[in-house]
Amino acid sequence: MLANPIPWPDGKRCAVALTWDVDVDSGLRYAQPDKADTLVATQSFVRYEPTIAIPRLVELFRKLDLRLTFFVPGWVIERYPSTVELLLKNGHEIGLHGYMHERSNQLTQQDEALVLGQALDAYSRVIGGRPRGWRAPGFAFSKHSLDLLIDAGFDYDSSLMGNEVPYLLQGKAGQLLELPTDWTSDDWPQYMHNRDFGYTMPIASPARAMDVFRAEFDAAHAYGALWISVWHPFLSGRLARLHAIAELIDYMRNREGVWFARLDEVCDHVRGLTAAGKWNPAVEQPTAYAA
Amino acid sequence: MLANPIPWPDGKRCAVALTWDVDVDSGLRYAQPDKADTLVATQSFVRYEPTIAIPRLVELFRKLDLRLTFFVPGWVIERYPSTVELLLKNGHEIGLHGYMHERSNQLTQQDEALVLGQALDAYSRVIGGRPRGWRAPGFAFSKHSLDLLIDAGFDYDSSLMGNEVPYLLQGKAGQLLELPTDWTSDDWPQYMHNRDFGYTMPIASPARAMDVFRAEFDAAHAYGALWISVWHPFLSGRLARLHAIAELIDYMRNREGVWFARLDEVCDHVRGLTAAGKWNPAVEQPTAYAA
Amino acid sequence: MLANPIPWPDGKRCAVALTWDVDVDSGLRYAQPDKADTLVATQSFVRYEPTIAIPRLVELFRKLDLRLTFFVPGWVIERYPSTVELLLKNGHEIGLHGYMHERSNQLTQQDEALVLGQALDAYSRVIGGRPRGWRAPGFAFSKHSLDLLIDAGFDYDSSLMGNEVPYLLQGKAGQLLELPTDWTSDDWPQYMHNRDFGYTMPIASPARAMDVFRAEFDAAHAYGALWISVWHPFLSGRLARLHAIAELIDYMRNREGVWFARLDEVCDHVRGLTAAGKWNPAVEQPTAYAA
Amino acid sequence: MLANPIPWPDGKRCAVALTWDVDVDSGLRYAQPDKADTLVATQSFVRYEPTIAIPRLVELFRKLDLRLTFFVPGWVIERYPSTVELLLKNGHEIGLHGYMHERSNQLTQQDEALVLGQALDAYSRVIGGRPRGWRAPGFAFSKHSLDLLIDAGFDYDSSLMGNEVPYLLQGKAGQLLELPTDWTSDDWPQYMHNRDFGYTMPIASPARAMDVFRAEFDAAHAYGALWISVWHPFLSGRLARLHAIAELIDYMRNREGVWFARLDEVCDHVRGLTAAGKWNPAVEQPTAYAA
Repeated sequence: MLANPIPWPDGKRCAVALTWDVDVDSGLRYAQPDKADTLVATQSFVRYEPTIAIPRLVELFRKLDLRLTFFVPGWVIERYPSTVELLLKNGHEIGLHGYMHERSNQLTQQDEALVLGQALDAYSRVIGGRPRGWRAPGFAFSKHSLDLLIDAGFDYDSSLMGNEVPYLLQGKAGQLLELPTDWTSDDWPQYMHNRDFGYTMPIASPARAMDVFRAEFDAAHAYGALWISVWHPFLSGRLARLHAIAELIDYMRNREGVWFARLDEVCDHVRGLTAAGKWNPAVEQPTAYAA
Repeated sequence: MLANPIPWPDGKRCAVALTWDVDVDSGLRYAQPDKADTLVATQSFVRYEPTIAIPRLVELFRKLDLRLTFFVPGWVIERYPSTVELLLKNGHEIGLHGYMHERSNQLTQQDEALVLGQALDAYSRVIGGRPRGWRAPGFAFSKHSLDLLIDAGFDYDSSLMGNEVPYLLQGKAGQLLELPTDWTSDDWPQYMHNRDFGYTMPIASPARAMDVFRAEFDAAHAYGALWISVWHPFLSGRLARLHAIAELIDYMRNREGVWFARLDEVCDHVRGLTAAGKWNPAVEQPTAYAA
Repeated sequence: MLANPIPWPDGKRCAVALTWDVDVDSGLRYAQPDKADTLVATQSFVRYEPTIAIPRLVELFRKLDLRLTFFVPGWVIERYPSTVELLLKNGHEIGLHGYMHERSNQLTQQDEALVLGQALDAYSRVIGGRPRGWRAPGFAFSKHSLDLLIDAGFDYDSSLMGNEVPYLLQGKAGQLLELPTDWTSDDWPQYMHNRDFGYTMPIASPARAMDVFRAEFDAAHAYGALWISVWHPFLSGRLARLHAIAELIDYMRNREGVWFARLDEVCDHVRGLTAAGKWNPAVEQPTAYAA
Repeated sequence: MLANPIPWPDGKRCAVALTWDVDVDSGLRYAQPDKADTLVATQSFVRYEPTIAIPRLVELFRKLDLRLTFFVPGWVIERYPSTVELLLKNGHEIGLHGYMHERSNQLTQQDEALVLGQALDAYSRVIGGRPRGWRAPGFAFSKHSLDLLIDAGFDYDSSLMGNEVPYLLQGKAGQLLELPTDWTSDDWPQYMHNRDFGYTMPIASPARAMDVFRAEFDAAHAYGALWISVWHPFLSGRLARLHAIAELIDYMRNREGVWFARLDEVCDHVRGLTAAGKWNPAVEQPTAYAA
């Protein structure tokens, strides 16, 4: 089913990157600056991430010997540094996710650049150096994002939805590797119900949500694709759901040839393939129509 | 999975508190004062609580020898005193749930205090004394709620979502025990479909809703947590759904080591543990960012 | 579970009234008078009722030897008289359902009275005599509806949701029998997805919808209740769904002691019980708060 | 269940037309002209159609020896000519689907005529000749569409929902064959979750979506109907979902007497039947109320 199948390391059949977006209260504060502090239950709902969910995730993935990618807004990096430290100490990757979970495509180019600078400053001050990966908050990658990210030295983005294998985004001054995902692999449409966020959807059982995710994995496994989940610790880190995820991981591990990887490892693998002339990603111009 | 596991009484593995929010027509009248009296079908939908659902619940839980916690707005206490009496006579706990189901975080601090006073007056006049527990209507706990509740002498709150075991909320003049829950354990996202309330969601079968709740219970049982349901008599008290709940209770009773408790009993248990130096809840400052 | 169990005819265990609301294009035209004629696909979606669905329903229920209740707006009675005739000839009951599917509680008392008069005129002109039953379009029974319906000589209403057995509504000049139902028994939350109606919900499979309805039936059967479905020919009359309904009916017929009845027959049965002193329905004042 | 059963070719029991609407970014650009170019993730979500999904579909249906109907807006035909060529070379039919995915019933008659002219020009310039079939974008067939389509020489429309077998639409200057479908056979209510499109629904698993579609097929097979799916390559062309579709096709092929056809073949078959006096479609006046 894949037009341009990618060879995975050691002859593996597919790659799985279980990624997490750690928004905590950034998006809530950004979207509702005057009200966020009095939405106390919803604050407790999302601040559950640093206090409960992340330590739990770290412990689970330590037991499972898995290292994953977490996308974190700059403001969250600054405000919850011990959470960031805990993730790093356990071998997880931290990618950037805006500064205050801003939707980039609702900003001017100048504001987007300022926000990106703020986020990078937070990253370098707390973590040191530069992040390799970016996921646009709310998947709201703008027509300016590509060039801003290339200029800022990012190696990859994981916000777009244009393929099931990595591909290259051609910008003005270079290229950025795209590690694509999809709303289908996000836990939001399965679990989100909260009026303060404006969502009044039914809530699926963990088994039901896993049906959706397992189907994505099964297809990736059958056809050799890269499957990237987009999960949120305040949703999927709750006991029943994380239990179901542990079972899903067990299921995946019992399938032959699954490469569990952080996104920076996927990025390195693609670079290695390209350098060795073993595989070339497709090249796309995601903002070509903007001209 | 729990960072700070709590010892339950008699070596039990987990605690289950099946709590109910008895709004009747309070929220409808509060939100739509000019229209509520002519929304006659929706009135019948919610007034089904005192006439049909509560007596039915009382009878079922008498047979099952269960005593539960019901959160009731002050106005409902005043207007349906025989319902309250029926609940009390059968050993159930009445917690407060606003006066007219006001969303606290949409009130000024002064109005929130007035409303709380009204609710407490209703409670003391009809029931006598003071309630021990509070659940914010619509989970709309405000940045002022904590101190108002501490000042009013409440022992616990059950509106926040920051953990799966009890924790302490640190206020200016003291602490309040938090017995946390989550939208996932609420029957609203499973069953609510009513244009007068502004909800046009699909309606789940009882079996489907129980899948969600059973997963929460199973996780609580597996990991030693406190599971608190948030059910509404006008939704879950209907025949088919209450039948499914009775089956779920049967399922839970067949699992080893489940402590069924009212929230005031959970509160007393935590106090006992703390006094005996056997367990200390985490302490959080839910409104710390408000400064 | 029933506080006031009703004896059904011949020792039957429960009663099932499969009722249908035949709106055709009345509600669409009423709500969007300037646009309805150019919503041609949605027109075809609902006009499928007289052309396809009703003849199909009539044929199916003739084979199954079932006579049911159909609620029809006055304007639909006037515009689709052969549909009405077909239903009547096959022993089905026609109840009224507004004139143009008006939401009664959005009308003034005077307008509601006018509309009711129009609907009754349509009924008497096309069918002759007076209807015995009423269902408020959109369940939008107003605070004036009860007295208007009593004055107009109706025997029963089936718009409210306050019980699972019949009950009496006390009006100023008399009483009206209420044969209650609930959103849960409506096919709308299962199947409706149409932007012209403002609904963008997921669509359930017939099996999934039947899970909801079968649970309602099973509970009615277990506890002796009256189960009233609220189905729409343009939704549930489609092939796959009607096939599933036929299977559900087969399932119900294989349970012992199910009384299939039209609502007028249920009404007569209740009257007979009352006259014979064998059972008394509860009496409610649904508009008591209006004063 | 069918009032006017149609004989299918070679004694087949039912007809299945798996049709696809290939909107790519037309609707997004039309609805949000100032913002579309900066909705880069959503652009990647829909431009996945020409780059990934269509080649994949073509390959799958070549293996399965199936030729299907694809409805494509004129602007998409112009902008993605190699996609169109690929479809045509593989024996698929291209029907028209507006020019920029305009909702016809939100245009004036004059604008609708202009848009139709643009779309026809695009078709004749890129493909040559004229399309035989039309599906109104968003099912928004207007009161003017019928006569415009007849005047433009279309043979059939597939936008309405008034039957499960073909029927004729009577216009001023002639007739148009209607090959009807329904929202139920659309993948949108199962899979769509995207804020840029204004949809925040839960996402179903492929198995769940197939439950809905299989029920439609089973009913068509049981009763001899025409089943027309309305799928979108950017939704149903994703790996896991297309895998499920391949399984559904396998299931259908294992049932006896299924005629897989393009809509132009269905159209020809109906004409043949009519010419031979073997079957007459019902005739409807879909805009009769417009007068």
